[in-house]
Amino acid sequence: MDSNTDRYRRSQELFARAAQVIPCGIYGHASPAAALPGALPYYAERADGCRYWDVDGNEYIDYLCGYGPVILGHQHPVVEEAAARQRRNALCVNHPGPVMVELAEYLVSLIDFSAWAVFGKNGSDMTTWCVQVAREHTQRRKILKVAGAYHGIDPWCTPGHAGLLDEDRAHIHDFSWNDLESFDRLLARHRGDIAGVIMTPFHHPAFKPSEMPAPGFWPHIESACRREGMVLILDDIRAGFRLDLRGSHACFGFEPDLICFCKAIANGHALSAALGRKELRVAASRVFLSGSYWNSPPAMAAALACVQILKQQEIVSTLRRSGEMLMQGLLQAGAKHGYAMLASGPPAVPFLCFIDDPSSRRQQYFCAEVARRGAFFHPHHNWFLSAAHTPEDISATLGMADDAFAVMRNEGL
Amino acid sequence: MDSNTDRYRRSQELFARAAQVIPCGIYGHASPAAALPGALPYYAERADGCRYWDVDGNEYIDYLCGYGPVILGHQHPVVEEAAARQRRNALCVNHPGPVMVELAEYLVSLIDFSAWAVFGKNGSDMTTWCVQVAREHTQRRKILKVAGAYHGIDPWCTPGHAGLLDEDRAHIHDFSWNDLESFDRLLARHRGDIAGVIMTPFHHPAFKPSEMPAPGFWPHIESACRREGMVLILDDIRAGFRLDLRGSHACFGFEPDLICFCKAIANGHALSAALGRKELRVAASRVFLSGSYWNSPPAMAAALACVQILKQQEIVSTLRRSGEMLMQGLLQAGAKHGYAMLASGPPAVPFLCFIDDPSSRRQQYFCAEVARRGAFFHPHHNWFLSAAHTPEDISATLGMADDAFAVMRNEGL
Repeated sequence: MDSNTDRYRRSQELFARAAQVIPCGIYGHASPAAALPGALPYYAERADGCRYWDVDGNEYIDYLCGYGPVILGHQHPVVEEAAARQRRNALCVNHPGPVMVELAEYLVSLIDFSAWAVFGKNGSDMTTWCVQVAREHTQRRKILKVAGAYHGIDPWCTPGHAGLLDEDRAHIHDFSWNDLESFDRLLARHRGDIAGVIMTPFHHPAFKPSEMPAPGFWPHIESACRREGMVLILDDIRAGFRLDLRGSHACFGFEPDLICFCKAIANGHALSAALGRKELRVAASRVFLSGSYWNSPPAMAAALACVQILKQQEIVSTLRRSGEMLMQGLLQAGAKHGYAMLASGPPAVPFLCFIDDPSSRRQQYFCAEVARRGAFFHPHHNWFLSAAHTPEDISATLGMADDAFAVMRNEGL
Repeated sequence: MDSNTDRYRRSQELFARAAQVIPCGIYGHASPAAALPGALPYYAERADGCRYWDVDGNEYIDYLCGYGPVILGHQHPVVEEAAARQRRNALCVNHPGPVMVELAEYLVSLIDFSAWAVFGKNGSDMTTWCVQVAREHTQRRKILKVAGAYHGIDPWCTPGHAGLLDEDRAHIHDFSWNDLESFDRLLARHRGDIAGVIMTPFHHPAFKPSEMPAPGFWPHIESACRREGMVLILDDIRAGFRLDLRGSHACFGFEPDLICFCKAIANGHALSAALGRKELRVAASRVFLSGSYWNSPPAMAAALACVQILKQQEIVSTLRRSGEMLMQGLLQAGAKHGYAMLASGPPAVPFLCFIDDPSSRRQQYFCAEVARRGAFFHPHHNWFLSAAHTPEDISATLGMADDAFAVMRNEGL
């Protein structure tokens, strides 16, 4: 790989400034610490459709979509106009706007098991609130979750290790994805004290392939929740609206009691939501929920427009077809150059990695080489398709991948 | 008071619909449960300058300012254009934009003790993260806070009582505002295990008058923090940028180690921030921080424009003068009609209540009568001035208050 010094010069300059005034320069998911230094852009300037441009003017076909929110493509005119119309009326006022009621009505009509909705600004707001609702409803303490699953940044669930107390997780217990024995062991140990189980619809840990649910996994969890009176919380923040508009559970043949959305709900406008069964309404009314901007109508107007378009245009099918084309093409391109690859996750929220790449060295080089050619694949976080990715965009991307594999083969990687 | 049935008909209709699909219909701060039923509007439609219009078309001079965020007035053209320009480039992308670095640099230059900044979307994000930073930095567990102070909705601090565990507050200990003995008792009991003290610059509990710090209160807290190695966290979310642009501590002669902002930072766009001393940078780097929309540039562009205007136009002085005019006028109008009132809090973030009104009945009627005449005072949450309130607006408001007092006197309230 040639030096990227010139290619990412402005990204590097901004990062040097940021390092003076922001801890780590860039923190969280977007931290450059997890990729090869200088191998990917650090700052973005502009985005449109399925493309974005970094601060050095380099163009990328975007397969991260802002870590998920951008489901219709950047700058979607209908969504932006809905938000703008609302914003010209009111951005931040003392009372909710009518659109809050309309959005709650629409989502409740869409999400099959739900009777009510609440809204926040970030995924963690909703997962943390749902855990409290489960505890209030059951008057029990324990929450079961899957080891390695991401549910946000609050102390009970953050992937970080700093600043935590033993008490933060005294009643949070991990089992393993697709390992019903580990689930049953926790159930036996804490029976009668388990308030709820929080899970993503499929398992999408960072730095690892995604895992779909094994046959019988979800039905077992669901029936245990019903039998034992445990609240089943579906964290659909990452996959929501890309797999099934009724909630991702509808793909897997079960029903949760609470569901959390964020990301794709408003095509990039800051909004999250939780919806629940009618039996949980009393508990939901009791658990305090508020925030400085939580009645702000523009993001709700964006969400209503976004979800209506998703339904009218059957975007779920589009995303599945696009994701299948991308992943099949990548597997073929890899095989052509002698690389055995693993495609994991549903096609609309896919991930690809090299088999036999324990240090992720090939993964890192592959993503860097593709980025140099004009498409952005995150090396260790699952990817996202949007409705703006056309077959032509995906074909172009596959050509870039073919070139990247060829370069890697030449360099003996 | 006449029936408000017609006046708030559409608010009531929307609330009836909301009650079907949203727990409590309206939750959190904005819940109508804390005011007389039907005495105030429930839904807003439009806002401009210092005015807003409810869904029934009633106009109000706005003394709540969206619970604080609106500091320059609704629809401020410079702030809106800064956000719009950024939004036309990029709303939600894979990497931060240059504006994140520029905003961090500007805030660090403004907030006197700070060396770095991070950003979130809501006040609770920042208070909860700062608590973790204090624990990481000190490797201690305990956090001292003031009883009745609001720091957000996370389990360690929510004003709600539902869905909580003993463990959530096992290491959170309350002392009383302006009661140094109660502070010293906690200090003596937990000495060596106290990570930090989190406080607002003045005390602004709901349903009660605000309380300013007594002489010697802040210096005592500050010197105890320095002496004992406890991190002093200033929660400046509600008062920030209205009292002093260097941080509200600058009004009271002390310096915190960490400071949290939200609300007025971006004139209504969803953004929060925490800034800290250089000594806390390592701990800040270790405590994981992320979110679905936390790199989104438009709110950061709005914040940069907002804070620059606050500085250039010396808005702090304007707000103080406007608040003084309002509160002196209200006290005089009350006295004229024989009502003894208490004005509390700093003029820019004031609160007014009736002396000898234990059930808050007079307070509720007063706010309802003023609302019917065209100004919105919240009956139990402190108020906010904005730069858009002119002396003429305040004069008009005082006329409405005079009429409201007269009606109350006539009705024997």
